[in-house]
Amino acid sequence: MNASGARAVGKVAVTRVEDGRRRPAERDLVAAEEPMEIRLAAGSQSPEASATGSTAGAAGTSVAVTMRTPGNDFELAAGFLYGEGIVRERDEILSLRYCIDESEPERHNIVNVRLRSEALPPAERLERHFAVTSACGVCGKAHLDALEVRCPVPLSGGPTVSPDTLASLPGKLRAAQTLFGRTGGLHAAGLFDARGELLAVREDVGRHNALDKLVGWALLEGRLPFDEGVVCVSGRASFELLQKTVTAGAPVFAAVSAPSSLAVAVAERFGVTLIGFLRGERFNVYSGGERVLARPRAGRAATGEGPRAAEGG
Amino acid sequence: MNASGARAVGKVAVTRVEDGRRRPAERDLVAAEEPMEIRLAAGSQSPEASATGSTAGAAGTSVAVTMRTPGNDFELAAGFLYGEGIVRERDEILSLRYCIDESEPERHNIVNVRLRSEALPPAERLERHFAVTSACGVCGKAHLDALEVRCPVPLSGGPTVSPDTLASLPGKLRAAQTLFGRTGGLHAAGLFDARGELLAVREDVGRHNALDKLVGWALLEGRLPFDEGVVCVSGRASFELLQKTVTAGAPVFAAVSAPSSLAVAVAERFGVTLIGFLRGERFNVYSGGERVLARPRAGRAATGEGPRAAEGG
Repeated sequence: MNASGARAVGKVAVTRVEDGRRRPAERDLVAAEEPMEIRLAAGSQSPEASATGSTAGAAGTSVAVTMRTPGNDFELAAGFLYGEGIVRERDEILSLRYCIDESEPERHNIVNVRLRSEALPPAERLERHFAVTSACGVCGKAHLDALEVRCPVPLSGGPTVSPDTLASLPGKLRAAQTLFGRTGGLHAAGLFDARGELLAVREDVGRHNALDKLVGWALLEGRLPFDEGVVCVSGRASFELLQKTVTAGAPVFAAVSAPSSLAVAVAERFGVTLIGFLRGERFNVYSGGERVLARPRAGRAATGEGPRAAEGG
Repeated sequence: MNASGARAVGKVAVTRVEDGRRRPAERDLVAAEEPMEIRLAAGSQSPEASATGSTAGAAGTSVAVTMRTPGNDFELAAGFLYGEGIVRERDEILSLRYCIDESEPERHNIVNVRLRSEALPPAERLERHFAVTSACGVCGKAHLDALEVRCPVPLSGGPTVSPDTLASLPGKLRAAQTLFGRTGGLHAAGLFDARGELLAVREDVGRHNALDKLVGWALLEGRLPFDEGVVCVSGRASFELLQKTVTAGAPVFAAVSAPSSLAVAVAERFGVTLIGFLRGERFNVYSGGERVLARPRAGRAATGEGPRAAEGG
């Protein structure tokens, strides 16, 4: 169900300048960026040819246009809809299909999602959902309250993770970024287990898209919720990334860079362990420190104290 | 007209872990992130008390909610509307005001923009403009075509910039980032002149917001277009950042990190000099190399060849 990886990078001409001197122009790879539209229709209403893969008529309600790196487009659509609370179960999705017309290659930029009739919200509710003035009002606290309506509060349980495991995640994430190495221009979101084993990684020019692709992969593979998983991202921790993490049920979120104030607030309210500035052997714990194991202190290693929380919570 | 800088950072509790050992919990600063809504109304229709600064009734059409770092909110609103092509001249803006109600501090998250009646697009047109399915269709080329409707093609003239000047920009940008130093979590967009003198810098958790604030500052100060200016951003070069740069008339755009394919395409189509991976004395020129001066080659310094383009275009 994934798009061709070939479309995920583009070739451009580049002139490198070093110490004021140019080298001859050469070809270089950059991360591809193209808009993608997500359209929703109910199973019974769809005008598409059923399973033939033929040209699709593509009615349906347009719910989003996002600038994304082509590739894993169906995961992106599924993960976006899951993060928005439109899709709650994998079985609600009947099909994911490009709106393909041989004469118009750009149609790879439209993904038609057919949902079970009973899963598709009425058009007015969809419209309200995506209207610029969200029902939840315009303050951080209201955003948190709105999220609470559909997510259990707080997340409890979940794995405990050692500092060594956490410290190993950025390196593993980078090593798995096949496209980053070629372009230097892609965000990554990875899912790890509690011992630091990489389960999946997704890349995109947009960091929200990278996490949507990861969640969409998990939804389509029947791996949600992420309740024993650790999500690690290559950049910063924003409100929206934490919102998606909570929706996916992940108890531990680690970012290579800084968190925002509202990201910390979401993590605290929903019981997520939030790690920031994860670099080398150092990191910051902003919330949920009970899931971070501490090494026994020097001199106490034999007291039987064993692993314990880095922070009470 | 700016918001208080105090709201731009938040205080959180943090436990630092290094080599597996935690330090005592302490207070730390993070970049604030809060939603901001932009509402549009015509001068004659506004129910606001005229210039009293009193509680505003705040009708008007809601055109956007963005997650932003509080501060320079009026610039953000003005720059966003300019980038969208809704506002074209400073004089079209009659007032920028918070929807303030003493009992609800969150109202600092709503900015009411009053436009001259003749400048406010009809409600239906506004709605179409911000609908998820943009009129320009869903492919990169269509996005470029739509941009071309309101921007001269291509930008011509503009300054020439030396490699030394370009190399100096990221350091100057970082030095001017007063909030980044305290939080490590903010994108920056700076405007420089052709000799590398910093004219203004704006910061935000969202990189698009940082550039909108910069353009909004310029609009409100009567400094648009940026036709002799160099825009430098702390992160990557995306389609949307190039779109805003073209709209602001800036001929040179430099990014510390990688460009996307569509960013390169916009730069080529609109004649913008696009610099990427600007680090130390090295950078890449993706487009518009005629504005980048090259040092005379060793041994040719005395031939009178002088400064010349790094690339023909």
